[in-house]
Amino acid sequence: MSGTLTGTLTVVGLGPGGPHQMTPEARAALDSADELYGYGPYLARAPEREGQVRHASDNREELDRATLALERAVAGAKVAVVSGGDAGVFAMAAAVCEAVERGPEAFRALDIQVVPGVTAMLAVAARVGAPLGHDFCAISLSDNLKPWPLVEKRLKAAAEAGFVIALYNPISKARPWQLGAAFALLRDVLPGTVPVIFGRAAGRPDERITLATLAAADPAVADMATCVIIGSPETRLVERPGLPPLVYSPRSAR
Amino acid sequence: MSGTLTGTLTVVGLGPGGPHQMTPEARAALDSADELYGYGPYLARAPEREGQVRHASDNREELDRATLALERAVAGAKVAVVSGGDAGVFAMAAAVCEAVERGPEAFRALDIQVVPGVTAMLAVAARVGAPLGHDFCAISLSDNLKPWPLVEKRLKAAAEAGFVIALYNPISKARPWQLGAAFALLRDVLPGTVPVIFGRAAGRPDERITLATLAAADPAVADMATCVIIGSPETRLVERPGLPPLVYSPRSAR
Repeated sequence: MSGTLTGTLTVVGLGPGGPHQMTPEARAALDSADELYGYGPYLARAPEREGQVRHASDNREELDRATLALERAVAGAKVAVVSGGDAGVFAMAAAVCEAVERGPEAFRALDIQVVPGVTAMLAVAARVGAPLGHDFCAISLSDNLKPWPLVEKRLKAAAEAGFVIALYNPISKARPWQLGAAFALLRDVLPGTVPVIFGRAAGRPDERITLATLAAADPAVADMATCVIIGSPETRLVERPGLPPLVYSPRSAR
Repeated sequence: MSGTLTGTLTVVGLGPGGPHQMTPEARAALDSADELYGYGPYLARAPEREGQVRHASDNREELDRATLALERAVAGAKVAVVSGGDAGVFAMAAAVCEAVERGPEAFRALDIQVVPGVTAMLAVAARVGAPLGHDFCAISLSDNLKPWPLVEKRLKAAAEAGFVIALYNPISKARPWQLGAAFALLRDVLPGTVPVIFGRAAGRPDERITLATLAAADPAVADMATCVIIGSPETRLVERPGLPPLVYSPRSAR
């Protein structure tokens, strides 16, 4: 996507966990940037580099942050915009594209790159086996940016069609009841025995993986750092003496 | 998941591209293994290490390969089972779990770990902007292991509910007509203007990214190494003079 002599903007996915889950490509993109933009807790996970300027902003100011970063790139800076996990999944890459579309012509001449990362649901799935081993979907439960009935429609369609469902942004102070409502809706469509995995901070020191059934799943187990995976009727538990069960969705389906 | 004094089995996702897209965690898991098992072309992408034994097998022998690897771990070996992309997405982690479930009791006592990776759709999406920036699903078009009417049902449900759709295993010698049939089905549900991205070998030297509309999408553009992303009606194209357009799915939806 290159072709200019001005600055550059790279949107970088840090991966879900520590440096061991960050790709060398992401690491190199961070190292070569003059200025980093991102949500504070994500910036804190980027390796320190002398002389690099960091601009932390609040989680809900994505479009402003993207616009500011693009302006700095137009001014000639080498800019990196940082997301946790993968930058393209409910994260900054879409905000940057939107800011380009809405912004001045100069934004369209910029060298813009996106560096992918391991997104949260993959890290959570890996901790328990292979719940995403067959057809699945990812849904953001945030209803800041879309109406709740659309979330309901998608949950219902996905469950009825047999998709495993990964929920991003399941809960926040401003969004306290949505995960409970999602579980209630899914209980009308899916067997109560379907496994639910709460994956908090997968790959980080404060990781906590909790396994439940859909019938018993308690929304209070989730927080802002949690990705929730809800199995399909095909998803299986393999019990292991003295070890946590393996959870997987078979490669075959009927 | 540890707890035994016998061997270990780690399922490792190599990432989609070269070593720059392989996490340090995956690299370390490969380095510490005595024996590697996997589909030949994936094994060829794992870094060489002296004294390490490699067992390449055909792409369609996943369950046999998993069983053999588990048997070697029970015998005391440090075994890594290798997948391209992420091991949990239409890949070996599910085959290993299935082999544990079907196999002898000794398989259930093993230390089994899964190391996540960047899955193909994330790498393809990054090349064009952020087409997976909003709710999306991943569907395998392989009908070896599930009936074609189920694939059709899922495609229709996903398109009608406004999901962006990533197709894995879109085409092969044994599966020549399915991608064309999927496009035909989706044309009945979605506007012909919806963008389609053919992402072949994203992140590798022979990468080829092709952008089309659903109306004009030609299945012959895809091969076995291609992941196909089909936008939702919300997915947008941002034209850029002298540069490829950005393709993104906005964070907000109506």
